[in-house]
This record gives sequence, structure tokens and C-alpha cells, in this order.
Amino acid sequence: MIRPFAEPDWEQVWPIVREVVRAGDTYTYDPAMSEADARGIWVESPPGLTVVASHDRVAGTAKMGPNKAGPGAHVATASFMVAADSRGQGIGAALCRFAIDWARAQGYAGIQFNAVAESNVAAVTVYRRLGFKIIGTVPRAFEHPTLGRVGLHVMYLEF
Amino acid sequence: MIRPFAEPDWEQVWPIVREVVRAGDTYTYDPAMSEADARGIWVESPPGLTVVASHDRVAGTAKMGPNKAGPGAHVATASFMVAADSRGQGIGAALCRFAIDWARAQGYAGIQFNAVAESNVAAVTVYRRLGFKIIGTVPRAFEHPTLGRVGLHVMYLEF
Repeated sequence: MIRPFAEPDWEQVWPIVREVVRAGDTYTYDPAMSEADARGIWVESPPGLTVVASHDRVAGTAKMGPNKAGPGAHVATASFMVAADSRGQGIGAALCRFAIDWARAQGYAGIQFNAVAESNVAAVTVYRRLGFKIIGTVPRAFEHPTLGRVGLHVMYLEF
Repeated sequence: MIRPFAEPDWEQVWPIVREVVRAGDTYTYDPAMSEADARGIWVESPPGLTVVASHDRVAGTAKMGPNKAGPGAHVATASFMVAADSRGQGIGAALCRFAIDWARAQGYAGIQFNAVAESNVAAVTVYRRLGFKIIGTVPRAFEHPTLGRVGLHVMYLEF
């Protein structure tokens, strides 16, 4: 069900990315992001990887790779997006489990999430269940469209 | 003494950036970074700003701007580099004070440092003196060339 992104997937991935960035309630991406910019940000090249969760259609997508360069390159990061009409079915958790397995197999020391909106309770709950710890929370660092400024968690799973 | 970077400064800024990235003991940049990549990373465009600390020659440099896009764009970030033969003279602290004043004047809500090696005691000490708090520390996330894996602090100064 989860497989590497291939070129023909983009026409199904872009509506998911667009929906998530336009909503502006989970990621620190520009809500007005263009399709070309989204492609550049979302479709990873090696050593990174982009995948899709797809049965008859693409319902979710993830990207993963080194979090930083040089002396920080042994720690991975990952991001996940699930189509609004496919949420609550465990697709995000499956993508996160995939990223954990991938990063472990690639020899990374752990996975860091740099900016998880504390209001994104569904995501925080999944991450914690999968073993991620909250390293700290930058107060009021995320401008939520309806809740105002909420904290951004830095989360980490060390292998 | 601290002024905006201008094109002719690059020939003095690049040796500082090169020295810092090649040492690999403070920043999560690729130690083998090319001059062109360094230029792209270090020389900011608006809304960001790159500055130099210069008396008769350039002894240090800083860059500053939004830490994240979209819902994270109200928080600034900044980076500082001082030539090895000019350290211990307060140039880094002066650059940091400049960045704080700049970010405040630009209307940011605070300044976040995403990855401060805990072994970089000189920098951590300056940042704390200027009001930054350690939000949390990602354990073993920085591969120091002689100390091995040390933690990376996330630091924040909220205005």
C-alpha cells in the first residue's frame, strides 16, 4: 500500500499537498505555495525518499531524508500528508511507521520533527504512540488560522 | 561597525564561511560546501538580511530572516560566523545584538536558533546572556569532529 512516489502520481499528490498547505493549520509552508514550489519541496531526491499510500487512488504521501547537512546528517526527518477525506483511517500512522522503518534501515540515529503544531493533536498523538518524545515547545511560534498563536513542538525518536 | 553585506564583501566573507564550515564543529552545514552553495546559503534576500562586522576588514558576518514560511514566518532566525583570528573580542555578541534589534524592529515575535551544538559553549553563553532560553536539546544530534555526538539545542528569545 505504501510505495515510492513515481512521476504519474504527482497529479494525485499535488491536490493533497495543496489542500494541506492552503488550510495553513498544520505545516509552516506558505499557504499560497505554487504547484512548482510544492513539487520542489515535496518530491525528494536520494538520499531522501517520497512515498505514496495508495490503494485504488493516492490517499496520503510522505517524504523523508536527512534533517540537516554535514554534522547533522545522521538524523532523519519526515513529513506526512493525508487527503482530508481519508483521515482517521490510520494512513498517517502507517506512513509514519514506514518512515521509521526506512530511517532505521538507512542507518539514521533517529527521526526529528522540527515543527509540529501543538494544536495538531491527531498527529502528536500518533507520534507519541510510535515513540516520539517532545524535546521542547517553542511558544506561540505557529499562527493557526482560527486558534491564534500556538506552540511548535520539536519531537524526536532516537533509535 | 555592523553594516549590510555588499557584493564586494564576498571575497572576505567566503574565507570566514569556508573556515567555519570546513571545521565542522559548530554548524550543520556540509563541510565540503562549495563557494557557490555557500553564497546561496549565506547571502540573504529580503525579507532576510546579511550583514558584516567590519572595521578595516571583515571580521564577522551574520544572516537573519524568517525561520519558517507561512504560519511560522512571524518568528525570525539568525546565524553568526566570526573569523578564527577575531574571536573572543565580542564580535559574535555584537552581531547577535544586531540581529535581535533588527528582528524586533521588523516586527518578529522572537528569534529561534534551530541547532546550536551544546559543545559550542562560547555561543551558548552569549545567547543565554542576551536572553535566549534553551527550549530543548536533541540528544546526540551533532557529530562533532573530536567530541563525538553531542546535543543540539533549540534556543528561543521571545520579545
